[in-house]
Amino acid sequence: MGGLETERTIKGWAARDSSGILSPYTYTLRNTGPEDVYLKVTFCGVCHTDLHQAKNDLGMSHYPMVPGHEVVGEVVEVGSEVTKFKAGDTVGVGCTVGCCRNCHPCKTDNEQYCSKKIWSYNDVYTDGKPTQGGFAEAMVVHQKFVVKISDGLVPEQAAPLLCAGVTVYSPLTHFGLKQSGLKGAILGLGGVGHMGVLIAKAMGHHVTVISSSEKKKVEALEHLGADDYLVSSDTTRMQQAADSFDYVIDTVPVFHPLEPYLSLLKLDGKLILMGVINTPLQFVSPMVMLGRRMITGSFVGSMKEQEEMLEFCREKNVTSMIETIKMDYINEAFERLEKNDVRYRFVVDVAGSNL
Amino acid sequence: MGGLETERTIKGWAARDSSGILSPYTYTLRNTGPEDVYLKVTFCGVCHTDLHQAKNDLGMSHYPMVPGHEVVGEVVEVGSEVTKFKAGDTVGVGCTVGCCRNCHPCKTDNEQYCSKKIWSYNDVYTDGKPTQGGFAEAMVVHQKFVVKISDGLVPEQAAPLLCAGVTVYSPLTHFGLKQSGLKGAILGLGGVGHMGVLIAKAMGHHVTVISSSEKKKVEALEHLGADDYLVSSDTTRMQQAADSFDYVIDTVPVFHPLEPYLSLLKLDGKLILMGVINTPLQFVSPMVMLGRRMITGSFVGSMKEQEEMLEFCREKNVTSMIETIKMDYINEAFERLEKNDVRYRFVVDVAGSNL
Repeated sequence: MGGLETERTIKGWAARDSSGILSPYTYTLRNTGPEDVYLKVTFCGVCHTDLHQAKNDLGMSHYPMVPGHEVVGEVVEVGSEVTKFKAGDTVGVGCTVGCCRNCHPCKTDNEQYCSKKIWSYNDVYTDGKPTQGGFAEAMVVHQKFVVKISDGLVPEQAAPLLCAGVTVYSPLTHFGLKQSGLKGAILGLGGVGHMGVLIAKAMGHHVTVISSSEKKKVEALEHLGADDYLVSSDTTRMQQAADSFDYVIDTVPVFHPLEPYLSLLKLDGKLILMGVINTPLQFVSPMVMLGRRMITGSFVGSMKEQEEMLEFCREKNVTSMIETIKMDYINEAFERLEKNDVRYRFVVDVAGSNL
Repeated sequence: MGGLETERTIKGWAARDSSGILSPYTYTLRNTGPEDVYLKVTFCGVCHTDLHQAKNDLGMSHYPMVPGHEVVGEVVEVGSEVTKFKAGDTVGVGCTVGCCRNCHPCKTDNEQYCSKKIWSYNDVYTDGKPTQGGFAEAMVVHQKFVVKISDGLVPEQAAPLLCAGVTVYSPLTHFGLKQSGLKGAILGLGGVGHMGVLIAKAMGHHVTVISSSEKKKVEALEHLGADDYLVSSDTTRMQQAADSFDYVIDTVPVFHPLEPYLSLLKLDGKLILMGVINTPLQFVSPMVMLGRRMITGSFVGSMKEQEEMLEFCREKNVTSMIETIKMDYINEAFERLEKNDVRYRFVVDVAGSNL
């Protein structure tokens, strides 16, 4: 276990400035501490947030930055106090790699809401060094933030589950919307939206995709298995659908009116926001009061929910729909992602790429 | 039971136009049907909604209109199929006097959300006649919408419970916020706000009143028994209070920013809106997502909750704080209500007035 004592030099792909262009970058990883897992990255999904962070769209980027937070890898080495994992295991890492352990969210298995959580990249670890993500040969991650990927899951298809998947799984379970027979709508059909359709269908829901045009109708109904498709500008059909949904998962990442979607909700229905939008959203209070409707949102999921979600997907045979790319295609993939030109998630074959 | 066969002519006070000025008005009440309760009104609370309706502020008023929906009365006569009430009982009537009985809300004891509910006044009853409220000698109401006022409650103080009281009791119980030890805030200290403080304190909560000025500090802490008082413009104290509340009950009936109050909520905290505001309210999505906070609202309460709430108030010795007036003072009371110059609810001594 010589690796426990020496830092390792590895290669990844990093953004250097707000152009967001990624290029090869060499850096070091910390030693494998007693509770750490050292893993070789095999696949890593490409989330829209990676693009935002690479380009400093959120105004909080530090460079050089190796993005990637839908990481699947193979365990190379574990620390002396790690019992859950062993060399050779297929594992996953998502958005976070640290939390305080002492606050109310941490103590209630909601560590994703810890105000001191540490992001997988573009953050500073407890040792004072920058965290770097999954577009790289390897990562060293505390065992609490590593999850087992069981044999029943295809590794590259499991990658998007670790962010997009748990992002929809978590609120559906948390808000009591997991039971079959519910009627749900998914607004927006990107990486998160497509997982929303697949997971909600696997829960036994009647699922309607809502979109601004007819463009995605065939794929929503035929490829993803949605039950219905609503064009938001079709006022006749929107009115017919009023007061009929248990929930609307809203994945639209830009300003949009909420009232057309609030009006779709039945008594106690929930509008669940997943898009980080800094332009204020609007609603009038009677729209929530007269129907006790709820506007809420959630942020990824806890490690406990990651485990549950992976088991749920294995059991229900849910897999993401992906386009696998090599690392040197990442800048082109970012451009296409910006135009929403992907069905539905890029996944980088990291182990198969020349870094 | 001659009353079962003849319409009765009674006196009330009605608004005639959007001046909202009330004056004596003579009209008829339907016969006491098999499931009806005929009651003599003794007291009736004055809610801000009465003022809005009298003045056509919501654009849906029909005249002549006899307002009043916090009605306490004495049963005079019951229909042949009424078993819950008998002549001489003290009873209450709230906002609604009818519903469809067949929809999802009706079938789940949430009839206040029935889209065909019938308001106590300014609505049309199943017989095609206008409904008229509690600023009158008497009412005839279907037994489903009548609630017993037990001997342990002072009738005039019970009147405001029937709207203001249940309006805060209902969401606290519905959203799982009834248990002791919670930390709540009440924004705005009018009729609903003061009931919010009293009921939340009776539930064993730590209650903070939030207001725009220091003006109501002494009364909030000393008269109503609140635990703390926050001035919303005091940014230092507002920041210190961030992430610490289980709920904020927001009774402000005009446009106001939501973010200062959302930021007070801890993980899974709830912002519960009670003010009907047609100017859009605003928030940014990360404010709800990062903390899984919830913006919601509710509308009065069900008849089941009315009964529970009255029993809760009797048991915990919760009574409203009121200023009793005679009917001929109503127009002055409306003027004072408009200026928020009442501690905290006007109640008309209807039986003791010369109508």
